[in-house]
Amino acid sequence: MFFGKNLRPFSGRGKMCFRICFLLIMGLAVPADRVSFADPLPSWNEGQAKQALVEFVRTVTDRSNPNYVPPEQRVATFDNDGTLWSEQPMYFQGFFTFDRVKALAPKHPEWKEQQPFKAVLENDLKALAATGEKGSMQILMTAHAGVTTQEFEKIVKDWLTTAKHPRFRRPFTGLVYQPMLELLAYLRENGFKTYIVSGGGVEFMRPWTEKVYGIPPEQVVGSSIKMKFEIRDGKPVLTRMPDIDFIDDGPGKPVGIQKFIGRRPLAALGNSDGDLQMLQWTAAGEGRRFMLLVHHTDGEREWAYDRQSPIGRLDKALDEAQRRGWTVVDMKKEWKRIFPFQ
Amino acid sequence: MFFGKNLRPFSGRGKMCFRICFLLIMGLAVPADRVSFADPLPSWNEGQAKQALVEFVRTVTDRSNPNYVPPEQRVATFDNDGTLWSEQPMYFQGFFTFDRVKALAPKHPEWKEQQPFKAVLENDLKALAATGEKGSMQILMTAHAGVTTQEFEKIVKDWLTTAKHPRFRRPFTGLVYQPMLELLAYLRENGFKTYIVSGGGVEFMRPWTEKVYGIPPEQVVGSSIKMKFEIRDGKPVLTRMPDIDFIDDGPGKPVGIQKFIGRRPLAALGNSDGDLQMLQWTAAGEGRRFMLLVHHTDGEREWAYDRQSPIGRLDKALDEAQRRGWTVVDMKKEWKRIFPFQ
Repeated sequence: MFFGKNLRPFSGRGKMCFRICFLLIMGLAVPADRVSFADPLPSWNEGQAKQALVEFVRTVTDRSNPNYVPPEQRVATFDNDGTLWSEQPMYFQGFFTFDRVKALAPKHPEWKEQQPFKAVLENDLKALAATGEKGSMQILMTAHAGVTTQEFEKIVKDWLTTAKHPRFRRPFTGLVYQPMLELLAYLRENGFKTYIVSGGGVEFMRPWTEKVYGIPPEQVVGSSIKMKFEIRDGKPVLTRMPDIDFIDDGPGKPVGIQKFIGRRPLAALGNSDGDLQMLQWTAAGEGRRFMLLVHHTDGEREWAYDRQSPIGRLDKALDEAQRRGWTVVDMKKEWKRIFPFQ
Repeated sequence: MFFGKNLRPFSGRGKMCFRICFLLIMGLAVPADRVSFADPLPSWNEGQAKQALVEFVRTVTDRSNPNYVPPEQRVATFDNDGTLWSEQPMYFQGFFTFDRVKALAPKHPEWKEQQPFKAVLENDLKALAATGEKGSMQILMTAHAGVTTQEFEKIVKDWLTTAKHPRFRRPFTGLVYQPMLELLAYLRENGFKTYIVSGGGVEFMRPWTEKVYGIPPEQVVGSSIKMKFEIRDGKPVLTRMPDIDFIDDGPGKPVGIQKFIGRRPLAALGNSDGDLQMLQWTAAGEGRRFMLLVHHTDGEREWAYDRQSPIGRLDKALDEAQRRGWTVVDMKKEWKRIFPFQ
């Protein structure tokens, strides 16, 4: 419980009165944002989504409520692309993949004439698409395999310090959603363990999720390629192999949750049809559960897309959310701020 | 840091003096075992293993020490079979597997004449061995697949309440090592996150590790079979499929650690050659690390086995431990008590 119904400091006239009383009692000037009664979700407009979130958290953390859930079972799983950070005009891991192939190209002069590499070097998405799944997979493996886990971590970190998003001209990790950062912190303050459950590569995310989201590596579930333990020059290494190990997307998400967490989430948050099964799996648990979809409706501040989008399509999941009363966040209406820099 | 060198309450004359002073200061009679100065490892004899453990924990938790490690990086990985509980005369999951096949047999009258089932129903290990890896795999999958994750969890829990170990005539979860329970608690009190990294099935362990070891499901890494998300009678389920997904043993252990935890352990504890690579991987990290092997030397209170044992063979890892100065626990000498019931 954050504060009682009649003590909501940010619901109008009560706000100043409450804060003054509090400061008088404390006898010192505590900055408002350090007071735990402060609005934990300042970038969320007052609306159905915020209300549903706060009501859910109050319910499951209230010992006197029949839907109380002990802290160890408070698991919240967040999709990443389109839920915690942007995913347009393509998944950010796609930019990484292209840049990585380009960085490797000087050592492979033959790529200039050889597909699918030629397509990437020429930024020719059409030609790349023409190479089919086999071509895409080859590019993906070239960018992600053949190095040790330690080397790959460094490659990702280095890329993040230099690469910039084409529209916003900022590092990709700057394009995280401020309201979601607040929500992550709010859930953690209320005893939740926050997880990422993403179709993205787990080793692409782990190097930065702790710093950016406060989510440690062991709470990141994602897609993966195989690894091999080897002793190289007397030192043990894990080499990343050019084989898919696990695809953590769509029906793979509940599987990933069970594999890596072994508990059903209490709350699941996503933004696309790739999250539908995660939300279904969450909703099927006993007691109170919370399901949320971010609906990208703000073409000005971010992007507007849903049913027809090749990236982050939200179609079946939107229908199911409406049918079952899951929370749908209308970004344009409900988010006061989208990015921290805005 | 637990207590300074000159303040060790349990190292002789200082003990009573310290405790009396403490009680006087506090002004009330705090039970000795509630005082954080109490020996955190009472079932460990004073010896090299206990000393090494305490010294390691003091070092990495002492902010003034150059080898200080922040809490979020304090990961300790424990093998399960032979490290946290016994593994003789066969892995306890083997007993489960046999019992499960027998429980299913009434529905399969043909098994009476059909290998490898006949061998299991007749407790004929020789005949089972003759069916080779294919036969063993068939038995394993019969016992573990074809049900939902929820059904399997119940099957494991039910089995644990009824099955008894043939030698000790007690539930298998009674055969956990008291010194290791103390060590798990001691590490957690010092900010460590304790994980199981076992060759055993992850879904065979998760239903009981929290209760028995204080290790929650999300901190259990193990072998797994594939799962499939399905909607059954309108309800989503995860069905356990008869396909190996991941073998978390030997060189698979560092892979499992990277997959599931994404951090290199600070401490790794095992008892067999199946743990060698986990210890190598841990040892190869920067700064102070702690590697420990349990050596089963007590045929009376438990079992005595090492280099020649078909279960839990400890041969190459023992040589490497001796060569590299890893801690080897001589169970007979160093453990005051082995099982909680003893």
